[in-house]
Amino acid sequence: MKYGLIGYKGKMGNSIKKLMDEENHQLVYKLDKNIEEEIDIPQLIIDFSNKSLIDKVIEKTQKYKSKLIIGTTALEQKDIEKLKQISQNTAIIQSYNYSIGIQLLIKAAQMINKQTLNWDKEISEIHHRFKVDKPSGTAIMIKNSLDQEINITSKRLGNVFGEHEINFSSLEEIITIKHQALTRDVFARGVLKSVNYIKDKKNGYYTFKDVMEG
Amino acid sequence: MKYGLIGYKGKMGNSIKKLMDEENHQLVYKLDKNIEEEIDIPQLIIDFSNKSLIDKVIEKTQKYKSKLIIGTTALEQKDIEKLKQISQNTAIIQSYNYSIGIQLLIKAAQMINKQTLNWDKEISEIHHRFKVDKPSGTAIMIKNSLDQEINITSKRLGNVFGEHEINFSSLEEIITIKHQALTRDVFARGVLKSVNYIKDKKNGYYTFKDVMEG
Amino acid sequence: MKYGLIGYKGKMGNSIKKLMDEENHQLVYKLDKNIEEEIDIPQLIIDFSNKSLIDKVIEKTQKYKSKLIIGTTALEQKDIEKLKQISQNTAIIQSYNYSIGIQLLIKAAQMINKQTLNWDKEISEIHHRFKVDKPSGTAIMIKNSLDQEINITSKRLGNVFGEHEINFSSLEEIITIKHQALTRDVFARGVLKSVNYIKDKKNGYYTFKDVMEG
Amino acid sequence: MKYGLIGYKGKMGNSIKKLMDEENHQLVYKLDKNIEEEIDIPQLIIDFSNKSLIDKVIEKTQKYKSKLIIGTTALEQKDIEKLKQISQNTAIIQSYNYSIGIQLLIKAAQMINKQTLNWDKEISEIHHRFKVDKPSGTAIMIKNSLDQEINITSKRLGNVFGEHEINFSSLEEIITIKHQALTRDVFARGVLKSVNYIKDKKNGYYTFKDVMEG
Repeated sequence: MKYGLIGYKGKMGNSIKKLMDEENHQLVYKLDKNIEEEIDIPQLIIDFSNKSLIDKVIEKTQKYKSKLIIGTTALEQKDIEKLKQISQNTAIIQSYNYSIGIQLLIKAAQMINKQTLNWDKEISEIHHRFKVDKPSGTAIMIKNSLDQEINITSKRLGNVFGEHEINFSSLEEIITIKHQALTRDVFARGVLKSVNYIKDKKNGYYTFKDVMEG
Repeated sequence: MKYGLIGYKGKMGNSIKKLMDEENHQLVYKLDKNIEEEIDIPQLIIDFSNKSLIDKVIEKTQKYKSKLIIGTTALEQKDIEKLKQISQNTAIIQSYNYSIGIQLLIKAAQMINKQTLNWDKEISEIHHRFKVDKPSGTAIMIKNSLDQEINITSKRLGNVFGEHEINFSSLEEIITIKHQALTRDVFARGVLKSVNYIKDKKNGYYTFKDVMEG
Repeated sequence: MKYGLIGYKGKMGNSIKKLMDEENHQLVYKLDKNIEEEIDIPQLIIDFSNKSLIDKVIEKTQKYKSKLIIGTTALEQKDIEKLKQISQNTAIIQSYNYSIGIQLLIKAAQMINKQTLNWDKEISEIHHRFKVDKPSGTAIMIKNSLDQEINITSKRLGNVFGEHEINFSSLEEIITIKHQALTRDVFARGVLKSVNYIKDKKNGYYTFKDVMEG
Repeated sequence: MKYGLIGYKGKMGNSIKKLMDEENHQLVYKLDKNIEEEIDIPQLIIDFSNKSLIDKVIEKTQKYKSKLIIGTTALEQKDIEKLKQISQNTAIIQSYNYSIGIQLLIKAAQMINKQTLNWDKEISEIHHRFKVDKPSGTAIMIKNSLDQEINITSKRLGNVFGEHEINFSSLEEIITIKHQALTRDVFARGVLKSVNYIKDKKNGYYTFKDVMEG
């Protein structure tokens, strides 16, 4: 598949390119801060950059009539709205976290949440010192999936790929669910899974949860 | 309700008696190592003692035609068989752990387990230095609920009421579910819940999972 | 010893009274919000209340010419100044945390801190849902002992007695030191130790570190 | 410096070679299972292989009159004896763990250990599923540094680089010290540090602790 990579110079960009190469996909369009290179028209755009590029990403997706897989965090509500609008004419997968484990964590948390309505809850996350958003997009995604106000705390330590934890506590017991990424490839592998999923999809707005279930 | 308490001198025995008193149940029969006291015939026997008393407990349950709630750990298969047999004539609740959180942990673990078939798995537990069985009955119960061979490791530290943890790991990510008891009352409260459940039950062999769902 | 207890109705107050009773000390003066009871003149005042009572505590210490053990958290700099001033005429022990383990944690943290000057650092704490100050006085004490700006995060969960954690991280490795209180008595036991220490002391301003070392 | 690498095909071997290249050291001798390649005489041998090669390593060190840095785990007492003997004629650094963090963990653990003589203690470790020795050499090194019998538990999960934890517990509180490697390079970087240390050393038997302190 001919694809474009937004944020291709970043760590996630490198990780995605490596795995896409292994599957013989061709990188024909690259975009990063102040750099743009167009070799051919991409059938698919993959965006793991920064929200500052979102307008450009949307413009390119429309111009190329390409599909879109987007993992950029900290998007605003209006960005999501625009993506949903575009998805009437193409297939888009949008998620703040492309790991299988995070999806399982959310599923387990939702199940436990239903049976512990008036328990105390806390969400926490740890990431590498280079991470700019705080709290992480994934932590916010977890909170939203539980549909209530929950305090989120964040630590920034060394080169940690990503840890997310949810605690549920009554006065008598605590249940904790934790996810740890052991390599940056965990997310790139989920992107690859999404590439296979989106290939045959026409129009529509999908999430990584759809990818896992389909 | 008139009830008998086996292992009434132990820590769990104390904790159960305290909560049963609050609900105005009457302790009419007591049994512990080398001590037996019968004031009246119990309608219900609660046993949180040691497996060395299991034959006596079974004998008494039959003699008094009483119901039975049993949380004794490290029972052998033949003890379980006997209990199931007796349950044709009375109501029995048997579980290695009477906490709501442990049941939720098991439910979440079973769900995750189904979607991570060839991942690595580990179970670990921490208990107070006075605990005699190792690994804990609850850790074994968790392993059995996942229906495969999983390594169990145990720590004995201070006065820890009980911690149980399951790890699921691929080469790229780890999911961990952990349960911590904050007080010994967490189990006694589950026993009280079981007392309310068994009141109206005729014959049958139940677990704490049935109590939680019913 | 005849002693007064400020905050005698609180959980710490109860815990201290229980252990002081065991050692045959006599409670002769009680103070809590809106309540005051004077039976006799105390030789020692123990204050584990709220900083709102600090002026009253100082007034009473001076009036009775009694010694003082104070564990009230969230004191302001001016309160500390006043306490130091009074300590010219009596013996005062002031600390935000009366556990042996916390003192060892701080000692270990200071040693590691010296050899990891440009590593990332984080402090976190978990306490029961009833705790009013956030972050805990102990977390602030830990930060101050390391003598640099460190981010502190806090969770409030169920009935947790108190957990404190420090992380040191380079790009390549993380060292974590954690302390967990298993019972509220851990602090009361440190208070008792302090009572024995202060008995023979004349004037001066001491901390729990002095108690441990002496 | 001209050096030889034993176990050059393994993960640690790769990691060491990468960092040695950066510092312009020349790999002139390679040994792994069934493979041997000699380009020139090494001034230094670095061995992070398997204990099955220890006799060959010792033979080569003597033949080449080279220095030796060895991190092979699970050595037997008799191997250590031989190494000490050879060190009368050359400089040898032997350690089961070449990370700065592990050395700090041990130093902190020894300090805490001295003040908690009759507390409960536990050591645990987690490593990737490919690790053959269990418990890890580092866990054994930690236990030996505390000079008493301590239970060690091990987990094998995914691609975890290495976690080691020590717990100290009274009936009232738990202190935990934990070390996590975030990359395999953490050990290779310690090896590089050792290369710089050994350069100017004549004869003698050193450990990584000497490297850190010197």
